[in-house]
Amino acid sequence: MFQVPRGTRDFTPEEMEKRRYVEKAMTSTFLSYGYGEIQTPTFENRELFTEKSGESILNEIYAFTDKGGRELALRPELTAPVIRCYVERLQMEPKPLKLFYFGNCYRYDRPQKGRYREFRQAGCELIGVDTPEATAELLALAYTLLQNVGLKNLTMNIGNLTIIGTILKRFNLDANQQKTLLPLIDKSQFDDLLIALQDCGVPESKASQFVDILQTNDIEEIREYVIDDPSAVQELTEMESILGLLKTSFQISNYVIKLGIVRGLDYYRGIVFEIDAPVLGAEKQLCGGGSYDLVSLFGGTAVPTAGFAVGFDRTILALEAESFTFPSQNLDVYVIPVNQDMMTKTIEIVQQLRNHNLCADFDQLRRGMVKSLKYAASRRVGKVIIVGPKDLEHHAVTLRDMKSGNQESIPLSEIFKKLKTP
Amino acid sequence: MFQVPRGTRDFTPEEMEKRRYVEKAMTSTFLSYGYGEIQTPTFENRELFTEKSGESILNEIYAFTDKGGRELALRPELTAPVIRCYVERLQMEPKPLKLFYFGNCYRYDRPQKGRYREFRQAGCELIGVDTPEATAELLALAYTLLQNVGLKNLTMNIGNLTIIGTILKRFNLDANQQKTLLPLIDKSQFDDLLIALQDCGVPESKASQFVDILQTNDIEEIREYVIDDPSAVQELTEMESILGLLKTSFQISNYVIKLGIVRGLDYYRGIVFEIDAPVLGAEKQLCGGGSYDLVSLFGGTAVPTAGFAVGFDRTILALEAESFTFPSQNLDVYVIPVNQDMMTKTIEIVQQLRNHNLCADFDQLRRGMVKSLKYAASRRVGKVIIVGPKDLEHHAVTLRDMKSGNQESIPLSEIFKKLKTP
Repeated sequence: MFQVPRGTRDFTPEEMEKRRYVEKAMTSTFLSYGYGEIQTPTFENRELFTEKSGESILNEIYAFTDKGGRELALRPELTAPVIRCYVERLQMEPKPLKLFYFGNCYRYDRPQKGRYREFRQAGCELIGVDTPEATAELLALAYTLLQNVGLKNLTMNIGNLTIIGTILKRFNLDANQQKTLLPLIDKSQFDDLLIALQDCGVPESKASQFVDILQTNDIEEIREYVIDDPSAVQELTEMESILGLLKTSFQISNYVIKLGIVRGLDYYRGIVFEIDAPVLGAEKQLCGGGSYDLVSLFGGTAVPTAGFAVGFDRTILALEAESFTFPSQNLDVYVIPVNQDMMTKTIEIVQQLRNHNLCADFDQLRRGMVKSLKYAASRRVGKVIIVGPKDLEHHAVTLRDMKSGNQESIPLSEIFKKLKTP
Repeated sequence: MFQVPRGTRDFTPEEMEKRRYVEKAMTSTFLSYGYGEIQTPTFENRELFTEKSGESILNEIYAFTDKGGRELALRPELTAPVIRCYVERLQMEPKPLKLFYFGNCYRYDRPQKGRYREFRQAGCELIGVDTPEATAELLALAYTLLQNVGLKNLTMNIGNLTIIGTILKRFNLDANQQKTLLPLIDKSQFDDLLIALQDCGVPESKASQFVDILQTNDIEEIREYVIDDPSAVQELTEMESILGLLKTSFQISNYVIKLGIVRGLDYYRGIVFEIDAPVLGAEKQLCGGGSYDLVSLFGGTAVPTAGFAVGFDRTILALEAESFTFPSQNLDVYVIPVNQDMMTKTIEIVQQLRNHNLCADFDQLRRGMVKSLKYAASRRVGKVIIVGPKDLEHHAVTLRDMKSGNQESIPLSEIFKKLKTP
């Protein structure tokens, strides 16, 4: 027997209902914020990803060579493909350009709860603008997107790579040393970070002060710490004006400053942020983003870019963990002919119901009434119509409420009215 | 500069609007017919496809080996994955089981108009029923699906592999000979077919009579031709009852009988059909399907199965060729602050519009009025709101109609009413 490949999943109709609900809710939020949808191919030239993330990415992606000798890879993420598409086709579009997307991504990873080899991401890129109002809107969008799908308990952490960068510069650390330290910061491994900083020649007292700053939520404490550094102070002032807009104009105040958010990716700049669903425990991060520079790396004319990605699968896990009630798409009505002579009339009724935008089905297995009603129940149908010769003499059918078991004869002309009122 | 891989495509927001429209229209038709959506992984174990289609399929698929040594392939079609999922997970579900899907598929093919290496398919599988009413409904669904997306000019051709099979049996042809002939029938290469039949020992007069029967649309002519063959006559009677239901109960009469439809796939049985959009010329086939047997091949308990697949990309090409007007999702309104002091109020207004389910955006680049209006025009916005201090003194804003250029001052409390009425 064939099996679904390891680390991948089939989605049954019950599961797809949830996925379509989340996709629809996210889509209408993106659209309301003036974003347009974009889609790129499932695979790209392999160098697109090594150029962005280094050769080491090859260890965790699905890379293959096509029959024409092209070195391709299933996309591990969507920012690089979208920026590739921007550079290739969309550079002349009026700015700002607001793009959102849904797409499956692929990583050859050890499968575990909430981590799959094929997983879905939602996200967006904002190209051509980096004013505080634009950045504040991006943060507001990320938060609202998850709120609008129905999540109740979210926390947003906001950091700033430019400020981290100026602090690390003060420590006289070279690029390689910074690269070693960033993952420790990102993973909040502060004990290891203390040691690593001292290995880099940073005195213990300074290292320990820095580790405190990474953990504080108090912007004044950070200001005091960087007060001698004009560029850091300026970045902090800009950040404050973004956060001010987020709080007062976009009405989102459920965030904390956390300089420890660094996203471990060296093409990010300025503000970076993550949104967590605490209900998920260790694997709680749903969303991550910030401003970055990839356009010039990919050969385009430098332009401000920012964006975020949302883990689609984890969003659903978080909704489930919060016992969210997903809207379901059950059949509206199931139609049963009492015998085969009633089939023509049955189909006629079903087609009329479908033309009135109702989801309708009918017994096609020529089963008896008891078995047909059992099947209807298994499909969670609320109403059943029974088509029989006696009713038909009076241009009527029998309508059965599956919950109460009550049956009544109703004129054919009143079916739609009866079914459309709950 | 990086480029999109050969034979694949990026879809811009304008293109995605069309694709989402078609997907939505198809989804609501599938749902109204009682189908539930299913999704399977982008890649499968390679043997799934060689088991179904033979080793030769390897010449045209993207096959690769993962880091764990698994031989995988990007799916070239969706019936095999869906049936694999049925056998693995869904065999115990109540019957009939009605499943529909959308998914990208992959073929290493020479790219040409309407043929891509990554392409999208829609389709469905009907599992556990093969009564005439069920088969008639499947044909009706395929036709209605394409009609409901907005296509005006469609033709449906209906064949029957069981009848073709009994005829070929009369010619005493072995399985291999049949395999040589079927592609010639499928591609309507009747001159070659005549020669091939005679090579197989069929007398010229009989071969020529058979070629005529393949081309007739007259069911009586076919009946006369197979009259001595009870099993063919029985199949023809069943087919007539299906076509009768299709015409009288499902109200679809725009089809022709064409025994030459064989779909070239050796696991099909009984009725097979294709739907064309003649507007597309040579590449006109949009949909193909029929009843088939894959469940037992994949290790499941034999059960009747039928289904069809629709070329998603070609459906869009056909709509474009018919000059269909796709609904567009332009911004509802663009909001421009006359100066930066108006930004807080501007964002407040925009967020209220978004909360009222309007698609709204605002100037984030601090441009002057002329440039902002030009940008709004480039985004095909119908209405612009201008936020200035004089209007605000009277709790009002200026509403500009982009078509006429007319401007009027309206109270803030009336914005939603004004924008929601066209």
